Amino acid sequence: MSTPRTYREAGVDVAEAERAVERIARAASSTLTPSVLGGVGGFGALFRFDPTTHPDPVLVSSTDGVGTKLKVSIELGRHDTIGVDLVHACLNDILVTGADPLFLLDYLAVGDLRAEVVDEIVGGVAGACAANGIPLIGGETAELPDLVAPGEYDLAGFVVGVVARADIIDGSAVRAGDVLIGLPSSGLHTNGYSLARRVLPPDTWSKPLPNDSRTIGDALLEPHRSYLDDLRTLRRAVREAGTDIGALAHITGGGWEGNVPRTLPAGHGVEVDTGSWPVPGIFSLIQSRGDIADEEMVRTFNVGIGMTAVLPAGATDAGLAAIPDACRIGRVIEIPEGEPRVRFA
Amino acid sequence: MSTPRTYREAGVDVAEAERAVERIARAASSTLTPSVLGGVGGFGALFRFDPTTHPDPVLVSSTDGVGTKLKVSIELGRHDTIGVDLVHACLNDILVTGADPLFLLDYLAVGDLRAEVVDEIVGGVAGACAANGIPLIGGETAELPDLVAPGEYDLAGFVVGVVARADIIDGSAVRAGDVLIGLPSSGLHTNGYSLARRVLPPDTWSKPLPNDSRTIGDALLEPHRSYLDDLRTLRRAVREAGTDIGALAHITGGGWEGNVPRTLPAGHGVEVDTGSWPVPGIFSLIQSRGDIADEEMVRTFNVGIGMTAVLPAGATDAGLAAIPDACRIGRVIEIPEGEPRVRFA
Repeated sequence: MSTPRTYREAGVDVAEAERAVERIARAASSTLTPSVLGGVGGFGALFRFDPTTHPDPVLVSSTDGVGTKLKVSIELGRHDTIGVDLVHACLNDILVTGADPLFLLDYLAVGDLRAEVVDEIVGGVAGACAANGIPLIGGETAELPDLVAPGEYDLAGFVVGVVARADIIDGSAVRAGDVLIGLPSSGLHTNGYSLARRVLPPDTWSKPLPNDSRTIGDALLEPHRSYLDDLRTLRRAVREAGTDIGALAHITGGGWEGNVPRTLPAGHGVEVDTGSWPVPGIFSLIQSRGDIADEEMVRTFNVGIGMTAVLPAGATDAGLAAIPDACRIGRVIEIPEGEPRVRFA
Repeated sequence: MSTPRTYREAGVDVAEAERAVERIARAASSTLTPSVLGGVGGFGALFRFDPTTHPDPVLVSSTDGVGTKLKVSIELGRHDTIGVDLVHACLNDILVTGADPLFLLDYLAVGDLRAEVVDEIVGGVAGACAANGIPLIGGETAELPDLVAPGEYDLAGFVVGVVARADIIDGSAVRAGDVLIGLPSSGLHTNGYSLARRVLPPDTWSKPLPNDSRTIGDALLEPHRSYLDDLRTLRRAVREAGTDIGALAHITGGGWEGNVPRTLPAGHGVEVDTGSWPVPGIFSLIQSRGDIADEEMVRTFNVGIGMTAVLPAGATDAGLAAIPDACRIGRVIEIPEGEPRVRFA
């Protein structure tokens, strides 16, 4: 018989997995805070929750992946930034509710387990968690030799935050005439890579990006921006101006139309002033090389704005003064039922 | 130029994704409880947390996948049970701390998006959540055409629960002489499939499992058991007997040695009475067909026990009476540093 007698012969290397787990534990330990309790053998991650910090607390959670940006990391053999993308993509999703993040977990599926690669990936996750002050409280590394090709991987994250019920930003106070401001993205973030990679295949990645010090590959790999500090600063400034943020939208999969309207009251949308913010060169290159229509660009990409905020007009100056690189990019308007809710003027 | 002009031409079908999202939303809606708040456009899932139910609350979270059991679902074209596996695998991981589950999120990565398959998978997730009384509060379906083969997928879950700090089961009270009881598994649960599939390849799956009404494929696909109700009942019974559960272990990846010791105090292990519980036929078949040593079997598989509990000897009868199919399977013993901490007698 040629059937395998051990799990290792079946393609699963438990010892290499244990080495990887040790490295992950080391990386994660740098992110821990006093709220994280040890023990219980690692079955569940324990986080001591202080309910007095957020009256009538609401837990806000989200899960996200990094899409086919993974392929750029894998093909370039640079695995230390994709974890930053993951953390920031997850964080930004809960920040739009007004939540303060509490902790994060990651899930990594690999084709074959290479402890060094796992170390780079999870090191990126842990580094971004530490930079944002959020413990990486747990995770799973799954070896799936028959589902994921050797050298490839998939990565997902899961974040939990908390917001006092009275502090939830839910768009209900938004009115026509409110101002739309935009916070710049660092690049594609984690959306549109299937299209971007067709237009800009790997053989272009070592070439310089026009009018930029980076290569095309560097620009494609630029990590997703975290808006944690920006949004804390913005909310403080807007509240000091006597009002509050009306709505926030994270420009992710589905682009502008897929994300901005979903936090606005029914019958409302935004009119966006094209040209009111600088569009990074990587988007211009993708559009011209791919001969992509404007409408398709904004349906697929953030085109330079990763987070939008709706502010009452009277708080706009305070908001813009608080975030140096924020731009006034449009306004809330009434839009009849059934029409697209993002208009580019 | 043959570069694509739309995201769809690049292999991403946004409309099919939206159909899948609608089906997922429908499935998830059946699991919702009054604690789940709507709104904020689905960026983050909102769960109202009542801190008075668990004094000094500790949030317990875990992420898990279902391993290469996925390949059995995929090859058999039966996608409605793998979500049950996912939910129960995640739940059992936090139950060992004594936590009550609050909510769950899922992450599904597909090669190509087929709304019907997504519906079956997420229907299984939602059905298991509903059966356990836990809201499926959010999720992500990622289309990764260049990383996952057409028709294949990966699935991960994230669960959050809560336990009062004083109620955490952490093994610290365990002493030599305590009794080990075992709760039967329903089969392989979600571990050891890479080995099991080598020993029992797909061409064997339609054959009957000896001394069983099921085929080998059915037995391999049998969903992971949830121990939620069992453990609630067990704890109540043990507490009524004037004491508490000392430790719990979910027998997952790493088998007995990888899971039972990690909840026991240093210098302690267990002596397990081989033959003290019925070993399901699927394990016997795998062992005989694969000519696998006993030590390898218990390092890879649960071999019929999916959850172990350590009870003070005086509470054993009460515990066993509370769970009809639980078995007394061994005892806690002192074990010198460096020796294996699970001995099979």
